[in-house]
Amino acid sequence: MFTKLHTPKGTRDYLPEEVERYRYIEDELREFFRLWGYQEVRSPTIEFVDALSAGVGPELVDSTFKFQDFDGKILALRAEMTAPVARIVTTRMTTVPEPIRLFYVSNVFRYSQSYVERGREFWQAGVEFIGCNTSEADGETLSLLISSLRKLGLKEVRVDVGHASLLRDLLKATGLDEEKKGILQNLLAYRDETRLEKFMDQNNFPSKLRETFLQLSCCRKLDKVSSVSIGSPKYGKAGAHLRNLLEVQDVLADYSVDDSVFFDFSLTRRIEYYTGIVFEASVPNLGLPLGGGGRYDDFIEKFGKLRLPATGFALEVERCLQALKAQVFQILEKRKTKVLVSSKFRNMAIKAVSVLRDAGVVALIDVTKDDEEKIRNYAKLAGIDYVLFVDSSLKKPVVVYDVKSDASRNVTIGAFLQQTGG
Amino acid sequence: MFTKLHTPKGTRDYLPEEVERYRYIEDELREFFRLWGYQEVRSPTIEFVDALSAGVGPELVDSTFKFQDFDGKILALRAEMTAPVARIVTTRMTTVPEPIRLFYVSNVFRYSQSYVERGREFWQAGVEFIGCNTSEADGETLSLLISSLRKLGLKEVRVDVGHASLLRDLLKATGLDEEKKGILQNLLAYRDETRLEKFMDQNNFPSKLRETFLQLSCCRKLDKVSSVSIGSPKYGKAGAHLRNLLEVQDVLADYSVDDSVFFDFSLTRRIEYYTGIVFEASVPNLGLPLGGGGRYDDFIEKFGKLRLPATGFALEVERCLQALKAQVFQILEKRKTKVLVSSKFRNMAIKAVSVLRDAGVVALIDVTKDDEEKIRNYAKLAGIDYVLFVDSSLKKPVVVYDVKSDASRNVTIGAFLQQTGG
Repeated sequence: MFTKLHTPKGTRDYLPEEVERYRYIEDELREFFRLWGYQEVRSPTIEFVDALSAGVGPELVDSTFKFQDFDGKILALRAEMTAPVARIVTTRMTTVPEPIRLFYVSNVFRYSQSYVERGREFWQAGVEFIGCNTSEADGETLSLLISSLRKLGLKEVRVDVGHASLLRDLLKATGLDEEKKGILQNLLAYRDETRLEKFMDQNNFPSKLRETFLQLSCCRKLDKVSSVSIGSPKYGKAGAHLRNLLEVQDVLADYSVDDSVFFDFSLTRRIEYYTGIVFEASVPNLGLPLGGGGRYDDFIEKFGKLRLPATGFALEVERCLQALKAQVFQILEKRKTKVLVSSKFRNMAIKAVSVLRDAGVVALIDVTKDDEEKIRNYAKLAGIDYVLFVDSSLKKPVVVYDVKSDASRNVTIGAFLQQTGG
Repeated sequence: MFTKLHTPKGTRDYLPEEVERYRYIEDELREFFRLWGYQEVRSPTIEFVDALSAGVGPELVDSTFKFQDFDGKILALRAEMTAPVARIVTTRMTTVPEPIRLFYVSNVFRYSQSYVERGREFWQAGVEFIGCNTSEADGETLSLLISSLRKLGLKEVRVDVGHASLLRDLLKATGLDEEKKGILQNLLAYRDETRLEKFMDQNNFPSKLRETFLQLSCCRKLDKVSSVSIGSPKYGKAGAHLRNLLEVQDVLADYSVDDSVFFDFSLTRRIEYYTGIVFEASVPNLGLPLGGGGRYDDFIEKFGKLRLPATGFALEVERCLQALKAQVFQILEKRKTKVLVSSKFRNMAIKAVSVLRDAGVVALIDVTKDDEEKIRNYAKLAGIDYVLFVDSSLKKPVVVYDVKSDASRNVTIGAFLQQTGG
């Protein structure tokens, strides 16, 4: 009997007030993504586990809900949306010219036993910019991320940007084993330059590589990357990656959002498929990022022959909501006036709600036939703004009971609508 | 490799044009339900199987996706939304005064091997009117169903209404075994009065019961129920059920929707929990109903101590879309103008898209740096309306290429916005 009344661990119900806030965030983001020319796609909640696990790394595959279909195939609940979008582009949009700009607003699932940071079912709103490998595309994606968070009403939005291949190439150049690479990455993440220097000395870093690591670790802004010296052409394509970052900075400056963007050499986002810039968005006083993304040029080809470079991001709706709440969330002011209509004459009550609804006012009919005091009491508890007691004709004044001021007055419906701005 | 490129049986992707249509239907219904004072709730996609199966009947329980959680509990994907809403009301809304009007727009799942009629994942928009057992509530629910379908733009909406307890009580009064009851129900469903009379004669129906069955089977409109004679007080509460139907008719007449409502004595909707009116909505030339619902006064108490009468309905978004398509669907006319901006001066391109987006025009930046012919070609294939080639200042006229007419002209951005109504 117990399980009948609860939801599974890491899942929950959303009551009306909260759904309204969720819808606000989802609708605003959707409208904004659309204005930027992105188009919405939807994918099934259930996918073949093979489709979800292509190239995302074992960590995410382990944390998907899996179950068997009647024909023996293994199904899974989607854990993120980039793989489904890649599959859609490869199989269903082959005749659409590139670049392709897509977005989604979807719930995703994690079969995780730790669900403190977030639920096992949560909502994401994200974009994928597919078929373009330029810094222009990186810049557009970052600008859209920042602009959409500002559009929600968030202040002090900050985006930290790193570069997956820059870090990967330079880590490779160190020649360290995986364990030591891990230690080095932690030192970079903590931005502890003293211990970083000590570590590099102990591990006999060549002086030029030592200098590159130190400069990148100290660098806080994208434009400052220009003064970083890449000592050796042996460091993979490190030079090209730095140029990519500087070009992105130029685009961000043109969008006037570069003041919100910071450089973080250590950022990886722990997802294997990233090949270029990676980034995370945050606001002060919220422990966890609102979302993030990056460039993934080798990912889509795993779904077919098409090699399509791409970049994208996902925002977590719940965290955006938490951030908005922390910064004084005011969407409830947008709430529509809510009116309860009561009448001994049912046809008049129906006419009245019809007039009110046509004017955009939320209108409920009293179906209880209770006495006026009970009806006023219901209105107070049910979040109603006004109760209208309607007589045998709409031409006659109605008694308007104002719940907030607990007072009644006589007025025509037309005048009532004018006064409430309906 | 095969499963990487496909979606599981009975599921599918939705490309942008289709998502737009889905969103249209979902948004219109949501706005309309809200205007009538219904509030949205969301429940988890995953629930305990016990919570989903309480009182819905074995058929639906068999057809849910089930899997095990890490702690051994059996989870399932929701197959419908009435049980989750009942659980929410019982556990989370005990202090909310009744009646409670709720709605949802949700995907639901069926673990079925036949997915021709509809997918194994499909979208429903529905309402539940909780805490009121009157004909007023039945009438409001039916009126909302009809009005919301009309609001979508559907013509010739038809709702067939039956009464679960009326049929149940009268079937019981026959004293037939289950098999014969089944045959009788089929005869009623086919409305074959000749065979019905023969069947009743063969089974020695008392003349008064025979008359009642025949009258109800022939009855096509709710108001005609008034002439049906209930022969015996032994027929359960048949008389009260008929009065319920006549009162509902009165409410529907006040809402001016009674011309869309028909009586169907045989309607059951094959769901066990219905206790009062049951109904299905349809339009001509669509084989399957758009949705339906009914009264379920004994269902919510299965989730706790609260005995709350309720009535509600669910519409299937996909079928509403099919119905709209069959009746010439025109939402694409609502589409926003879509503009591609190209410029050698990136900062000017960014200024231009910003001005356009502020005016509500969908604006994309060209990031390819291709030559003008390639850009015009991309625009044609990507569903762009206009390409704006912007010079070094927004004060100078821009070259506007009109994709439809394949012609260019020089005009300022302000004039362009005026001309396109942006």
